[in-house]
Amino acid sequence: MKLAVIPGDGIGPEVVAEGLKVLTGVLPSVETTTYDLGAARWHRTGELLPDSVLRELRQHDAILLGAVGDPTVPSGILERGLLLRLRFELDHCVNLRPARLYPGVPGPLAGDQAVDLMVVREGTEGPYVGNGGLLRKDTPQEIATEVSLNTYFGVERVVRDAFARAMRRPRRHLTLVHKTNVLVHAGQLWSRVVEEVSMEFPDVSVSYTHVDSAMIYLVTDPGRFDVVVTDNLFGDILTDLAAAVSGGIGLAASGNLDPSKANPSMFEPVHGSAPDIAGTGQADPTATVLSVGLLLDHLGLPDAARRVEAAVAFDLATRQPGSIGRTSAIGDRLAALAAS
Amino acid sequence: MKLAVIPGDGIGPEVVAEGLKVLTGVLPSVETTTYDLGAARWHRTGELLPDSVLRELRQHDAILLGAVGDPTVPSGILERGLLLRLRFELDHCVNLRPARLYPGVPGPLAGDQAVDLMVVREGTEGPYVGNGGLLRKDTPQEIATEVSLNTYFGVERVVRDAFARAMRRPRRHLTLVHKTNVLVHAGQLWSRVVEEVSMEFPDVSVSYTHVDSAMIYLVTDPGRFDVVVTDNLFGDILTDLAAAVSGGIGLAASGNLDPSKANPSMFEPVHGSAPDIAGTGQADPTATVLSVGLLLDHLGLPDAARRVEAAVAFDLATRQPGSIGRTSAIGDRLAALAAS
Ligand SMILES: CC(C)[C@H](C(=O)O)[C@@H](O)C(=O)O
Ligand SMILES: CC(C)[C@H](C(=O)O)[C@@H](O)C(=O)O
Repeated sequence: MKLAVIPGDGIGPEVVAEGLKVLTGVLPSVETTTYDLGAARWHRTGELLPDSVLRELRQHDAILLGAVGDPTVPSGILERGLLLRLRFELDHCVNLRPARLYPGVPGPLAGDQAVDLMVVREGTEGPYVGNGGLLRKDTPQEIATEVSLNTYFGVERVVRDAFARAMRRPRRHLTLVHKTNVLVHAGQLWSRVVEEVSMEFPDVSVSYTHVDSAMIYLVTDPGRFDVVVTDNLFGDILTDLAAAVSGGIGLAASGNLDPSKANPSMFEPVHGSAPDIAGTGQADPTATVLSVGLLLDHLGLPDAARRVEAAVAFDLATRQPGSIGRTSAIGDRLAALAAS
Repeated sequence: MKLAVIPGDGIGPEVVAEGLKVLTGVLPSVETTTYDLGAARWHRTGELLPDSVLRELRQHDAILLGAVGDPTVPSGILERGLLLRLRFELDHCVNLRPARLYPGVPGPLAGDQAVDLMVVREGTEGPYVGNGGLLRKDTPQEIATEVSLNTYFGVERVVRDAFARAMRRPRRHLTLVHKTNVLVHAGQLWSRVVEEVSMEFPDVSVSYTHVDSAMIYLVTDPGRFDVVVTDNLFGDILTDLAAAVSGGIGLAASGNLDPSKANPSMFEPVHGSAPDIAGTGQADPTATVLSVGLLLDHLGLPDAARRVEAAVAFDLATRQPGSIGRTSAIGDRLAALAAS
């Protein structure tokens, strides 16, 4: 297995080191190549993602990314020039974001709310395509547009992926989240595709929720969701809330997948580079380790993936309340548990 | 004061009756005309908002709407043909949505979270304009687009309104919520306008939050928000979550305002027509009464508005836990408190 590693900035390298510890513990044959991308490289060279690096990344089976970003880089530069460019170039149409509130983890909601959902966020279309512009800039007549592009091709493949995932989960339920009563054109396409693909998955029950109502349900009744399929922007918004109600983005894993496997998929914690705690050993590598679990599953190693997730569940359930483990201590423990 | 009343469907007429009780208690000179619009009329006549009715509505100082909708009407019909048409025709550019967790109201968050924010949601632009289409419908080559339109004219007036509101609140803080790192064109316009208008309001402190992060903050640290200004779609999503963390949409008020006062503004509870409890006397009219408070404030009667809000605060703080008042009993109590 050839893995490209992009440690990135801030705590990125620290959490990635622990993720690799766990990965090599369950899969000793991993061959890694490290790529220096992110704020540091941009400052040094002005480069975000050189074509030659992109070509090399394509030669790998998967990519593990820590976190990129730094307050010294203007907003949008790394996001569009590196993170989104990777998603678009490598056709990462499925942005996979599980949200599970593990036993022992304090959530922000009162009462006993079970959260265990899997969001399949579309990753290469919608309002993220960069299509839009400014007319009469800097005048009182200025107009700014943003165009959301949605294709049958693009929607069908993520909806199909979401149904297949729902089939593998005990509840076999899929919820489409959209705003079909207002965004009628995109809404029609999404609804039609879900209806069509559902014919092939008669065992999956299907429901629909407007994105605004979904916000309410995520804090009052998150247990109603199993697999959620949604567009790029709604998915961005929804997965941050789903992460918040399952213990915070500090624990949230993600995979940017090309289900066709023509391109390597990329796995990364949802959290940022947290420059304020970089180098202090306080970063929690759990989200990265869970992302390694998604990576193993994607590469066809479900048993190894399950061991990694079980290690995290065990560790979270038994961590001393209030004690913050050191980054490497958590990594050691998770690696030992997963390999045992 | 000439008030147009649209009771609507389901519990709409029930909550509106209580809203009017409170309104006439503090402002005996109100002259009301009732308009039959909503699911019932659509079923009977096929009409949503006849031009003649729209012309009559324009002759009023304000509109009070209960709720429209019924499961028998296909999704989108009443939303676009009636609710959104009213917002667009009457130039309701400021969609005002306060979210306050009143003492005595159980919220969904653990711990003691204070919520007291005011969302100024743009109401006539963004992805709500209906601009978009379907190409090669029903084929594997189908493409659906949605265009978000944002104008300097449209953004400036709501940003100005939001700053003016921030000036009248003790904390004088304004947060722009957007997704400027991805929706760069609209993001540039919104950021530039906020920066520009902020020069005229040096006493208002300004911050910016991405819409996805805003979701997290709303459940982990809602107290950081004072006035929030945001676009139509982000505002739709954000205000449902803000309502959820302040006791539910059952208590959420809203005003659709034309700050220029060229058109009557419209006030409505955020909740729907709840056909399941219609006629049972269980509907809580509090959100409608709070909307009446916004109406009074908009019409230049801040003292009366304050009395209505204080009545609600007192009532909520002293309601017996677990007891659900009857609709009219709550209305009577609120009317008596507000008039006293
Ligand atoms: C950094 C940003 C471009 C990105 C997104 O909007 O997709 C992030 O919020 C995420 O969810 O991965
Ligand atoms: C009913 C719908 C069109 C409306 C909206 O999206 O604005 C509603 O959700 C709201 O927030 O008032």
